[in-house]
Parts: sequence; C-alpha cells; structure tokens
Amino acid sequence: MPTRLTNFFLRTLREDPADAEVTSHKLLVRAGYIRRQAPGVFAWLPLGLRVKAKIERVIREEMERAGAHEVHFPALLPREPYEQTGRWTEYGDALFRLKDRKEADYLLAPTHEEVFTLLVKDLYSSYKELPLTIYQIQDKYRDEARPRAGLLRGREFTMKDAYSFDVTDDGLDASYQAQREAYERIFERLGLDYVIVQADAGAMGGSKSEEFLHPTPVGEDTFVRSAGGYAANVEAFTTVAPEPIPFDGLPAPEVLDSPNTPTIATLVDLANLEYPRPDGRDWTAADTLKNVVLALTHPDHTREVVVVGIPGDREIDAKRVEVAFAPAEVEAATEADFAKHPGLVKGYIGPWSPEGPVFGAESSTGLRFFLDPRVVDGTEWITGANVDEQHVFGLVAGRDFTADGTIEAANVRDGDPAPDGSGPVELARGMEIGHVFQLGRKYAEALGLKVLDENGKLATVTMGSYGIGVTRILAIIAELHNDDKGLVWPAAVAPFDVHVLATGKDAAAFDAAERVVADLESAGFEVLYDDRPKLSPGVKFADAELIGVPKIVIAGRGVADGVVEVWDRESGERSSVPIEGVRQALGR
Amino acid sequence: MPTRLTNFFLRTLREDPADAEVTSHKLLVRAGYIRRQAPGVFAWLPLGLRVKAKIERVIREEMERAGAHEVHFPALLPREPYEQTGRWTEYGDALFRLKDRKEADYLLAPTHEEVFTLLVKDLYSSYKELPLTIYQIQDKYRDEARPRAGLLRGREFTMKDAYSFDVTDDGLDASYQAQREAYERIFERLGLDYVIVQADAGAMGGSKSEEFLHPTPVGEDTFVRSAGGYAANVEAFTTVAPEPIPFDGLPAPEVLDSPNTPTIATLVDLANLEYPRPDGRDWTAADTLKNVVLALTHPDHTREVVVVGIPGDREIDAKRVEVAFAPAEVEAATEADFAKHPGLVKGYIGPWSPEGPVFGAESSTGLRFFLDPRVVDGTEWITGANVDEQHVFGLVAGRDFTADGTIEAANVRDGDPAPDGSGPVELARGMEIGHVFQLGRKYAEALGLKVLDENGKLATVTMGSYGIGVTRILAIIAELHNDDKGLVWPAAVAPFDVHVLATGKDAAAFDAAERVVADLESAGFEVLYDDRPKLSPGVKFADAELIGVPKIVIAGRGVADGVVEVWDRESGERSSVPIEGVRQALGR
Repeated sequence: MPTRLTNFFLRTLREDPADAEVTSHKLLVRAGYIRRQAPGVFAWLPLGLRVKAKIERVIREEMERAGAHEVHFPALLPREPYEQTGRWTEYGDALFRLKDRKEADYLLAPTHEEVFTLLVKDLYSSYKELPLTIYQIQDKYRDEARPRAGLLRGREFTMKDAYSFDVTDDGLDASYQAQREAYERIFERLGLDYVIVQADAGAMGGSKSEEFLHPTPVGEDTFVRSAGGYAANVEAFTTVAPEPIPFDGLPAPEVLDSPNTPTIATLVDLANLEYPRPDGRDWTAADTLKNVVLALTHPDHTREVVVVGIPGDREIDAKRVEVAFAPAEVEAATEADFAKHPGLVKGYIGPWSPEGPVFGAESSTGLRFFLDPRVVDGTEWITGANVDEQHVFGLVAGRDFTADGTIEAANVRDGDPAPDGSGPVELARGMEIGHVFQLGRKYAEALGLKVLDENGKLATVTMGSYGIGVTRILAIIAELHNDDKGLVWPAAVAPFDVHVLATGKDAAAFDAAERVVADLESAGFEVLYDDRPKLSPGVKFADAELIGVPKIVIAGRGVADGVVEVWDRESGERSSVPIEGVRQALGR
Repeated sequence: MPTRLTNFFLRTLREDPADAEVTSHKLLVRAGYIRRQAPGVFAWLPLGLRVKAKIERVIREEMERAGAHEVHFPALLPREPYEQTGRWTEYGDALFRLKDRKEADYLLAPTHEEVFTLLVKDLYSSYKELPLTIYQIQDKYRDEARPRAGLLRGREFTMKDAYSFDVTDDGLDASYQAQREAYERIFERLGLDYVIVQADAGAMGGSKSEEFLHPTPVGEDTFVRSAGGYAANVEAFTTVAPEPIPFDGLPAPEVLDSPNTPTIATLVDLANLEYPRPDGRDWTAADTLKNVVLALTHPDHTREVVVVGIPGDREIDAKRVEVAFAPAEVEAATEADFAKHPGLVKGYIGPWSPEGPVFGAESSTGLRFFLDPRVVDGTEWITGANVDEQHVFGLVAGRDFTADGTIEAANVRDGDPAPDGSGPVELARGMEIGHVFQLGRKYAEALGLKVLDENGKLATVTMGSYGIGVTRILAIIAELHNDDKGLVWPAAVAPFDVHVLATGKDAAAFDAAERVVADLESAGFEVLYDDRPKLSPGVKFADAELIGVPKIVIAGRGVADGVVEVWDRESGERSSVPIEGVRQALGR
C-alpha cells in the first residue's frame, strides 16, 4: 500500500527551528524527520525512521557478511564492570549516572566494551571457539558538554558497535581487517567517500586505531596526508623531532630587559632591535619558546594548572592537547588560576619545574611542565624569565631546563614532515563516519577474560572494537545531500523511492496518479503519494523538494494528453512520460 | 545462507540459572536466548533477538493495518512534561530519575503519554487532521520493587505503545475499537488465547480500560467472569452493595467482654457461646466487621496509617487495595506503626474517625477509616472496641460510625454477583498480554493540546493509549510452550523454521544435511544447521530440544538408504523421509 499524505503523520515547517545551527538539523526538522525533545535528544518521526532503518539494513547486511553475529545489550547497566576498567571515573561528566530504588549505581552506557567482554567470558572457554565478532545496533548515551549540531553530536544516539575476540595478535589483525573491509563496503553502499586515517587510540585504551573520515571542507575534524600515502587525524599525528645537539661550549643564558613584550611578535621585534643575533640572521618566532598555561579538570573534578612550552611560531591545538591530557578536560587557565600561582607572570612566563619556576620568583610552588617534541636537548631559546618585562636569551634545553615530559600539543601545519618519512603533509578537513580500534588485552585483563590456548594454558583474549554512529551517518548524509530547496536523498537511503503528486482540481489527474502509484508499487517501488486535495501545486512541489525523495512524478494538466512529468530531484530535470511508461522511465 | 552452529554465537547451558524463578526465564537463559545483566535487565543473544524481531514484525504489520504510524521517542526525557501531569511524583520509586551535567532533571520513560501529546500539540492544529494514531516499539524503564520472573516483569523492557488522538468521544471510541481489533489479530497470529476483561483505568488517569488476559492456571493475574458475559480483572471488579436499611428502633450498641478473641474465628465462637443471637441463628464471620490496619507510602515518601473495615468473612486483596490507594504503595502496618497509634489495640480494633477511635482510647489521634461497600447504613456489626478483650455488639453503620469513604479492598469470591446483573461470577487466572485505555482529556488538558473544531473553536483533544509488552509476550509464549526437554516454539515466532542436524562421523551424513539445508533455504525456510563435527548425537538432540525450533531434520545412518528423519518438536513424532523429499514433507 502506498503511503498517502492525506493520512501520513507528517507536517513540514516553513521556518528553520530556532535552535538549529547546522543544515542537516534545520532540514531534518523542517521536513518532518525528527523533533527535538531535549538538548541532544530527538524523537524520530515516520520519515526519519524509514531512513534510519535503511542505513541500519545496509550495516546489518555487511556485518552478517563479515561473519559478525547480532546481539542487543541494555542501555541501563550496573556500575561494577565500568568500575573494574576505570571508566566509571574516567568518563567524567560525560557519563549519565543514576541510582535505583535500592541506591545501587547504574549508568547509561556510552559504549559497551565491558559487558561484551563479560558476556564472552561467561560463555566461552577455549581458543577453539574463537575468533568471534559480535555486534549490536543500539541507543547510546553521552552527556556532551555542548550538544549541538543536531544529530551530529547528540546525547542519545544510535550506534552500531562491534567487538572482536581473538587469542593471538594475528587473529586480532584478521578480525580488525574484516571489520575494516565491511566498513569500506558500508560507506560505498551509502555513497559516502572516505579516507582512512590513523587515529588516536588512547581514549579507548587500545594499541592501534583508524578513523574513517568523509573529506569535506565543512568537516569538524582536521586530518593530514602526505603524497607518499600517510594519513592521520591531527590528534594522532606525531611530530618528527630533530636530533639532540651537543651543548658543550654554548654560552650561559642571559636575563635581559624586554619592556612591553607580552606577545611573541613584540618580543621578536625587540630582540632584533636591541639584542641582534651575533651571526646577523634575524630572530624569528621559531627561536622563542612560548609557555602556555592550561587548566586540566581531571575525572575526579580536581583542577590542575600546567605549563606547556611550544615553539613561538606554533599554537596550542585544542583537539591535540585534549587527547594528550585525556581523560582530563583542558581549557585555558583563568584569572583565578593565575592568582593561585603568583610566579606565573603573564606575557613573561618561562619554564617551570616541580620545585617552581626555573627563573624568577623562587617562592612559587611547582607546576608540571611539558615540552613540544621539537624542544630537544641542545636547542637554544628566548623565553620568559617569570619576571615582568624580562626574558632569558640562550636558554639551552637539557642544560638549563628539563620537562616532566613531551607533549603533542602544538598545531600541525602544511609542510610538516610525515612521521613515516613519506614527505610533507597537507591539512584537510573531514567528518568522522566510523572508527575501528585494536583494543588489545586491556579490557580482557581488567575483567579476567581468558581462554585455554592450544597448549591448554590460560591465555588472555585480545579484542577489537568497531563503531559507526547510525544517527550521525544519517545527519552527515543529509548534510552532504541538500540544496536551498531541501533534502536530496541518495536512492540507497531515501525514505521512499518515488514521490507521486497529483495537482489541480481535475479528478483525472488524481485518477492518473492512482494508476501510476499502483503500477510503481507492483514493480516494487516504495511510493509516497501526495493525494491531498485542494492544495496548490506550489505547496506540493515545495513539500516534495523539502522532503527530498529522489524521483518525483507529477500528474497534472498533461494527463489530458496521456502524460505525467518525471522530475529528478537532484538534477532538477523534468521530462514528459506516458502515464503507462513511468515504471520503465524509472528503470524497472 | 544457513546459520551454522560451528560459528553461531550460541552456547547452551546444562544447569538452570541460580536466580531464575520461572520456567521461561530458566529456559531462555539455558537455551542461549538471553543473559541477565542486572536485576530485571537482560541482554539479547542472537536467538532471542530473532524471536523478538518476529513478534515485533507481527505487531508492526497489524499496527500499519489499523492505520497507525510508527515513530520512535527517546528513553531519556526531561522532567517538565511529567511534572505537568503529576506523574514525575506519582510514579514514586518506580521511576528512574537522573540529572545531567547541568543538574537538569531527566527520567527514563516508563510510558510516553506526555511526549506524544506534546508532539501532536506541536504539529497539529485542526480537527481536520484527526483522528491520528501513532505508535512506537521502544525500550522502557520501570524500577520495579521486586524485579523477578525474568522477562515477565523486567526493569528494562520493550513495549509497543500506541496513542490515539480524536476531537470527539465517538472518535475516541472508534480509535479505541481499531486498536482493540488490531490486538485481537495480533494475539491470534501469535497463537495466544485471550479474554478481554474490564480493567482499572485509574493508574493512567483514564475513563475506561480493558486488559487482554491469556487464561492459564499459572497466571499471576486473577479475573472474574459471569455466564452472562461479564469479565473483569479483580482490580476492576465492583462490589454490588446491598440497599441501606432503616435503623430506627434498633437497640443501642453494647460493649461486651470477649477474652481471648483476637481472631474472627475465636470471636464468632465466643459470641455464639456467651452472647447468642436473640433469634437463635448462629453468628457467623459475616456478622463481624474486621478492621485491618494498613500503611500507605505516598509518592512523596510520607507514610500514612489507615484502617479498613471489611466483613469478617473476607480478606484484604493485595492487588485491589493497591489500586484503591494508588499511587500510594500499600503494606500491612508494622509494629512501629502500631506503636505510634496506641489506640490501635491489636485483635480488638474498631472503627476510627478523624478524631480517633469511635470506641476505646479517646486520647488517640485520628486515622482515615475506610469501609467495604457492603457495610451500608443500617447494617449491624460485631466489631472491636479498641480495648483489649472487648468487642461491641450491635454497632450500626451510619448511626454509630461512618467512614472517610468506601473502598474495594476485600477479595472477590466465586458466586459474588456481577455488577452488571449478569449473574454470579467465577474466578480464573490469566497473564496480562495487552492493555487498552481510553485516557480521555486528562493529558491533553494538562499539556494544553487543543485543536480548532468544526465551529472554529478550540477543543481539547481526547486520547487513548494502547500497550503490548513485547519482551513480556515473548516470555509468556516461552512459558506456555515448553516441556521437560526445553522450548517448543510456535512456528509464527520460532527463531528458525527448521533445525537440521548431521550426526555420526560419516561424511555422507554431513553431505546429505548440506543438500537438505540448501534445498530448504531455496524454498524460503530459515534454517539453523548443526554442522558441529565430533559431537555425539545425544548432545545435538538435547540442544535441538532445548532450543525448540518446531521442525528438526536428522541426517544420520539412514542417509545410506537415502532417507533422513523429520522430527516434530511438539508432538515428538519422527518419520523417515527421502533426502530429496524433505521440503515437501515440511509443506513447501
């Protein structure tokens, strides 16, 4: 039976919703696919549910083809397993926590590694039963600090998450590869171009991970690639550090007056004017060490101020520094943070150590201090002296100061060398559409998942974890396929195959439309039929364009001459087709 | 492709799970359909997911046939709408409540009347757009005090909930009838006999409701029916009260000593011995008024002690009294409750009033006092005097004591008159499989859902609400269809159509099984193929019986003679069938 607009639960809106920031959100609400219930929480209306089901079907088919078995876990889970892996705490405020009537702790699961691990532990005991990959398509919860962008970053969202279990590292590689290939097929079927980039595995505690990114200038993620085949998201990019330099015989550092130089630019100008380089070359920002003060909020809500030293010609990259300090949340230090550490002299901050600043106010307490990997032993720097209007010149890393560690916090730039030696990288933007992880043995160890190996000995299982955000994918497709009139669905995920509409007051047009609808349905097309009487053609056309079914058939005045119009939503082309020939014109 | 047990994610267990109380729970866990994650919270394994999907498909098809449109709401919802209808509080401890990182209140929805109402308010504005029925199949949450019986009463469970919207009462009747008929078709297709009984509509705040009960002696619900066609669950049964009797000229009540009569039986014995009735008839328990002390816990957690007077030959019915006092939870008064009300003399409790006991200790504070509907004005009673070892005789209702209201708290018995005059009722047991409510305008009024009516005036919409517990239905089917070997699924919901197994070490048996499997699959059967090598026939048979696929095909020794065995799981009949004739033997 066709779906008839006279009684379909669909209302389109003329205005963009006030709270919508991105195109997909605006259009999905206006065209009647979703409605917001709370920040980052949406209800699915019939049209949206149809598109979602189509995406899920593609994913299911490819999961089955990859030999994965479907299961379904609850969203409501007890605290204990997440306590055992540390994630009850590490997730911080992003985890929805609650108590039941007996005051027992529960969570709404943001991801299910723990309980999948326990399930396999519960049922399996021998290497002979492995490998195993199981998956679910299920609603997940993350209490995002800034839920925004509609379905692109929701607090309740549908995910396909798969988990693989192997005894050997080679087995894990094979399971990982099978999921990776399933992802390639899924994205091909959904018409989503992708780049596979190295990703940071830290958040999941794994050893290797890759992200599938759809490259698009409006993407929220940045990645880099080299002509030689290297690709990574910026969080995973590792800096190529220079070789250390012997510092024997270098002159001692000198603290010099540097009035009115609170920025790198003013400092470089003053240095070139007042303290020119002995060899005549200009000082540049790259000769300075910029010490940035950051505030970390740890999962237990303690706040820690740290100092990060990077070359003065670079900036802190918000995503890279988040990953570097995960699971802490990172923000710029506030006035209150500075007030607690009087040794931090704004604009003139130098290296710190656990005892306090290397230069300057000796009474200050220590802060952890981290350095960019380029600041290798023997490099010389101009940097703050932790005293107002003074800088140190010729400060030598490894001789005059050291750090608590190196950190990948500085931004990546076009031309930076790829870590695999494949040449300079260039930056590009994309949207994450999938993520595959080699978790290794972290979860199996924490939860005691062991099986008997070939030698009859207990071996800890090694795992992979593989995620696709179903509702996010839907939003991305909507984000990529639209025009100023509305949505333009690719056929693979469109809510219907054909949108038939009858216009005018002439019963003949409606009769012809009915015949076309019946014919298309008998050929297996899913048809949305706009049978609403007394509506102007303009309203019907506008709704059809907004809803975005790929093929539109218009039964109007032409019916008197035995023809209807077939309208391609994407190209806008319209052609007259005999009433009896619509099915053929649409390729069946 | 057939599902092969060599790589299917299925492990059967030999032992019943320790925490399982009911057959369906034991068998579903042992046969690998579900696994418990927390009290009342389950994970679905592949077999279970298949059965669940089949039940959901039947429900979806019948909902669509009834003209209902599918939507999908989040489980996580904001507090506000539930605050507006009062259910944020009324649900008491049964509601899972939580806060987000901004301390905003949320709940895990136990049912969705509020947000469906708001959705229609958001999108609809005219009577012309109605009637409308929309539904979802979705996971719900109720923090049951005693989650037990596996899926029969879970804390996370899947429900189909539909909601209808009409302008007129006649419209609501029609929408209600359409859902009611859809339910009849659903239960017929699922092979579930049902009785439709009047139910208590109070919990949902509605005006009319009916329950679909599957009649079975092991059911947890009790219902009554008369030969004349009356049927109701005991919660909804209303007592036929006698006519009031004039009490002019009745003698005054007399307080008499009644040592050692803390029970109705001892009281009746003593009365017949010491205070025989003037007319010579025996006193019976029906002549006594038993005053029962109950403790109510209101949704705001305040505790209230009340007294309920019922004829001495009846008992308090736990379910009827729960409904009568809803949303409060009800339990027997504890020693601590008695200690707070010294006027309550155990075994000798009489009527109370807001001022205190009608007889006895005058210093006691008042308690609310309720009476069974049979205690009409003019009836005479023997009852406690609120003094140890004393009772009052000839206490006349309406003259000597009154109540704060009547209450349907006493048990119903075989032979009680049906309230519709259709004769005496008999008691039977059943399991609830569906519930339909006429909500009326309660939710629409609380949330302001109005549309323009035919006269251009705003009219409040009237609603219905219709629920089927999907996971509960699955458990009920499992509860009804099993034997001492395992599950015996009806074909409509079985995880597979046919279970093929090859036995022995002879490759010929496995080859024959492969041919049968391929042939069955080409005929459209869903096949589970036990291709595990090196397992004894006994283990394979036991697994097949436990799993409960309706038809089992055994390829074993007979293969040498060109035959396999076809085994009917329900009847246990086995018959030899030519290898090439299995498809025909199974009816395709």
